[in-house]
Amino acid sequence: MKKPLMFISSIGHYLPERVVPNEYFLNLNGLTDEWIYTRTGIKERRRAAEHENTNTMALEALRIAKNKLTFKISEVDLIVGATYTPHDTVGSFTYEVQREFGITNAVSISISSACSSFVNAVEIVQGYFAMGKASKALVIASEHNSGYSDDTNSISGHLWGDGAVAVFITNERMGTNDIEINDIITRGLGHIGQGPAAVYLHPRNGGLIMPHGKDVFQYACTYMSEITREIISKNNITLADLDYFIPHQANIRIINYVADDLGIDRNKVIINIDKYGNTGSASSVIGLSQHYEEMPKDSNIVISVFGGGYSTGAILMKK
Amino acid sequence: MKKPLMFISSIGHYLPERVVPNEYFLNLNGLTDEWIYTRTGIKERRRAAEHENTNTMALEALRIAKNKLTFKISEVDLIVGATYTPHDTVGSFTYEVQREFGITNAVSISISSACSSFVNAVEIVQGYFAMGKASKALVIASEHNSGYSDDTNSISGHLWGDGAVAVFITNERMGTNDIEINDIITRGLGHIGQGPAAVYLHPRNGGLIMPHGKDVFQYACTYMSEITREIISKNNITLADLDYFIPHQANIRIINYVADDLGIDRNKVIINIDKYGNTGSASSVIGLSQHYEEMPKDSNIVISVFGGGYSTGAILMKK
Repeated sequence: MKKPLMFISSIGHYLPERVVPNEYFLNLNGLTDEWIYTRTGIKERRRAAEHENTNTMALEALRIAKNKLTFKISEVDLIVGATYTPHDTVGSFTYEVQREFGITNAVSISISSACSSFVNAVEIVQGYFAMGKASKALVIASEHNSGYSDDTNSISGHLWGDGAVAVFITNERMGTNDIEINDIITRGLGHIGQGPAAVYLHPRNGGLIMPHGKDVFQYACTYMSEITREIISKNNITLADLDYFIPHQANIRIINYVADDLGIDRNKVIINIDKYGNTGSASSVIGLSQHYEEMPKDSNIVISVFGGGYSTGAILMKK
Repeated sequence: MKKPLMFISSIGHYLPERVVPNEYFLNLNGLTDEWIYTRTGIKERRRAAEHENTNTMALEALRIAKNKLTFKISEVDLIVGATYTPHDTVGSFTYEVQREFGITNAVSISISSACSSFVNAVEIVQGYFAMGKASKALVIASEHNSGYSDDTNSISGHLWGDGAVAVFITNERMGTNDIEINDIITRGLGHIGQGPAAVYLHPRNGGLIMPHGKDVFQYACTYMSEITREIISKNNITLADLDYFIPHQANIRIINYVADDLGIDRNKVIINIDKYGNTGSASSVIGLSQHYEEMPKDSNIVISVFGGGYSTGAILMKK
């Protein structure tokens, strides 16, 4: 089948104001700044305020992304929300978005494949474009990890950050600064390692827990590397052609392992875990949003992710 | 674009053993059997046992659907889970399914558009088929409403039931008993009426609440009727050609209003709300599963849904 054309025509991200430095955890669970930083690469993370949640952060990110939009937001015909930390599983933020921005003729859905959710959402958009059922899509990833995580948990409490990112994707080029999406691969890995038992979020009973961190670490390294090689070779380019590598931001040691394994120069790797922690499905896309303007023409860009469950995915783009 | 072919090749549903009759609520919130039955059409509903949840019920439904499968379940290349009552938003049941049934080469995602989730899931399958990225899909809707609802709530506590349904969808006919999916329409309605405020599920704070039941009632009537007319006329058949009308099972008065408004004979309407209550996104599909075998060749079948948020959708099928 002929793949539909896909272009990112506008992007924006939102991070809550409140900064939580590593020092905050010392009294809670005994972890020092140095211990956290050397093992995770995290110095600080952002946390939603009392009045904020997954839905409000999604709307904030969209307000920013909308600033550079070259078409009317009411023309959006597909909204895909990505989150594993929902504020509301019925009144999802995609409906709040319709309501606040007057998007009255759109498919509206929320998805989760944990930290892979954004990549899966973009592949769903690709399907709607292929069917001719949509042409102007909006994908928003919003994660309120602190709403579900336990700060006293010395295994994973310090890892999580909050944030959101909104991306408009169209089936034609809307401006000279657009990034073209050339390929998307996603894959469920429930059968690998500890799978769904490795990291879980039971909203009714407690929250976000990672009992098998080593298993997650090991398979994240393996699969983020493998899926990157796959999307590169499938599209007849080489790893040396890559200008920006944007991995899921779960741990700097995973990121460095993957970059080194792939032979990607570390200065081509986009990092934000130091300042934002693990912002879940939003993390790599916030990285894209942060560097979007400065990326020169003809840049080759790859997003590569790994999620709890497990799952993996990659997006190949060209500016 | 040429639409991909889609066939339901196997279907199965699971309902928990425990029956909760209307009498159960009298001591909790003062509602009598007669009051509940005349206003909702519900006599009893099923409730998950202590050891059951959204994930275990999904697996049970799949075990039943798998019995009549004519291909190896390991050939499934796309799993879409539908639920607004998740047991685990990271270790979702689509990963448990991969693990338990050895499905090692599949896209694996969970979605929610509340009670419209199944219809949206099938449209996502349509997109993957259109792209040639999948050919054997598995859609499972599983709802554990009692995990989030409050039995003492006299507005909505008595409405909810638990249950799950699993459906295999292929891009070619696999057997003489297959049902062909001819069209799917979905639409987000966040901008209508009370929208996302009408019924919500905040997993972190309380549960499933319906502060604007009348608003839900009114728009469910309007839009389930409207979307049914739309899918019928779009496909050049008439309402009189319909053999089975399977509405979302939220309230018998909504169902009767919609059937009468459309002029559909009530003996063509599939009902299970009397015995199962509102089983969310699984409700209409459980109805399809209950009557699948008895449906004669050449039957025209429509599923029509309305979900919190709001949202609506319809599927046109032919056996």
